[in-house]
Amino acid sequence: MDERAALDLVGGLVGRAGDDAAVVDGTVVTTDMLHESTDFPAGTTRYTAGWRAVGASLSDVAAMGAEATAAVAVYGAPAFDAADLEAFLSGARDVCERVDAEYVGGDLDGHDEFTVASTALGETDDPVTRAGATADDVVCVTGGLGRSAAALRAFDAGDVDRANDLFQFTPRVAAGRALAPYATAMMDSSDGLARSLHQLAAASDCTIDVDEAAVPAVDAVADYATDDADAREMTVFFGEDFELVCTLPDDEIATARDACPVELTVVGDVTGDTAAASSDGAVTVGGDALPDRGFTHGD
Amino acid sequence: MDERAALDLVGGLVGRAGDDAAVVDGTVVTTDMLHESTDFPAGTTRYTAGWRAVGASLSDVAAMGAEATAAVAVYGAPAFDAADLEAFLSGARDVCERVDAEYVGGDLDGHDEFTVASTALGETDDPVTRAGATADDVVCVTGGLGRSAAALRAFDAGDVDRANDLFQFTPRVAAGRALAPYATAMMDSSDGLARSLHQLAAASDCTIDVDEAAVPAVDAVADYATDDADAREMTVFFGEDFELVCTLPDDEIATARDACPVELTVVGDVTGDTAAASSDGAVTVGGDALPDRGFTHGD
Repeated sequence: MDERAALDLVGGLVGRAGDDAAVVDGTVVTTDMLHESTDFPAGTTRYTAGWRAVGASLSDVAAMGAEATAAVAVYGAPAFDAADLEAFLSGARDVCERVDAEYVGGDLDGHDEFTVASTALGETDDPVTRAGATADDVVCVTGGLGRSAAALRAFDAGDVDRANDLFQFTPRVAAGRALAPYATAMMDSSDGLARSLHQLAAASDCTIDVDEAAVPAVDAVADYATDDADAREMTVFFGEDFELVCTLPDDEIATARDACPVELTVVGDVTGDTAAASSDGAVTVGGDALPDRGFTHGD
Repeated sequence: MDERAALDLVGGLVGRAGDDAAVVDGTVVTTDMLHESTDFPAGTTRYTAGWRAVGASLSDVAAMGAEATAAVAVYGAPAFDAADLEAFLSGARDVCERVDAEYVGGDLDGHDEFTVASTALGETDDPVTRAGATADDVVCVTGGLGRSAAALRAFDAGDVDRANDLFQFTPRVAAGRALAPYATAMMDSSDGLARSLHQLAAASDCTIDVDEAAVPAVDAVADYATDDADAREMTVFFGEDFELVCTLPDDEIATARDACPVELTVVGDVTGDTAAASSDGAVTVGGDALPDRGFTHGD
């Protein structure tokens, strides 16, 4: 069973699973585990690891349209080096500070592989879920995509400083708060844009057509992509980016864009409900199927 | 640097670290990581693993005197087997149900070693910390100690069903709530009674004298201990039990015992402040030093 099938199983057994975060009486909680072999390439500093692990959880809070309040993490490593641990904590605290949350501690665990389990908390009276997109909404993304794909290329190329910088993303908490009053559905792009859109379409029971030419890429994509097809792979499929993907009514896009503290780009339209889906599937590009593939942990 | 030194470092860098859980605006949050090589002996079922991992975090909520509200967990494993995952989730849900909390999901992670990161949330307006014990308080523990030590012996002896049963403890949330109005300091016994008392004495800046004959043991200790010294090792030092250790005024012990839904046993006295500590250290047994040793993760 791969991770997607397993997640479907969990969704069937745990009523509140299936969105970016659970919401219990207005408190948002979300947890992630990252580890060296799959998430922290050689060259990733412990500062970056702390930033990125805690940031990934804060991104899930952002995706619910919630205020971020606090985060904790478990630092698992074969040995506890003071400089490493201090750097990790600095990164964890700095990413919390970036989104006005507080890093409040966690735990240590002796672990063969460097592993971080992070948990973020938030508050919202009105969470935005993945379900709620309706026909005639537009589909938007914040910021630019391809950041993590570019970071991996930078690590491979030995551009370690640039790679670490790219790996330290800003969780879109402020954007999520700004978009919450307008967004009909929202999630983060951590599984890649294509897969995220498939997930959003499935949760909202709608069809989406994407304008691939409009998909915004971070500048670093152009520096590392070998050609247009490669750039597309980096921005549309690769994933591990932490932008917000949301739907909102066409007539609110201008207002939402004014409110949003980062670039908000329209990348497609909700074209109908699932009953109207063609045999090409729920998500298309100019009418052709967009493959449902991207980043699956546990592959 | 061993885990204790590393935790001291974290405590110096993260203002809210150092107690069983952090409290942010009345919300209690705590996180733990458990993994196969150190926490789940051969024979531990996935049901037990789910129960125990989530229970360990709920125990930290209990130690703050808080109501437990919710828990999440990350299930990291080399492969996702449906029966294993369902069993894990059942254990996680059942331990939450035991303490009136809700299991609200989590995440999956492909991981070489079976690893669980659990997080529990709670609510309290008046958390009980490790600091606050004063001279003339008595020192109490809930339930019986030695449960996990006995469980490991049972695993070794091939008594797998009994071992799994012993590994499924009841987090003392109800007891913690009942004791909170009376307790001057509280923590759980996960590092072992001896080490927990040293930690409580350090946080409260007090000295403690223990009546070892009074330390309550679960019945299973007698079944597996080779002699009295071994039984002492299992109950006083071994740790990984999840009882509450607390201090409260001598004249409130009867009322607190009536309120507490589990056995509450007086195991010692707060004998003075640290300035009065003898050269034998802050925690003694009939005047002789009680070694500050117990369960240290990461050893």
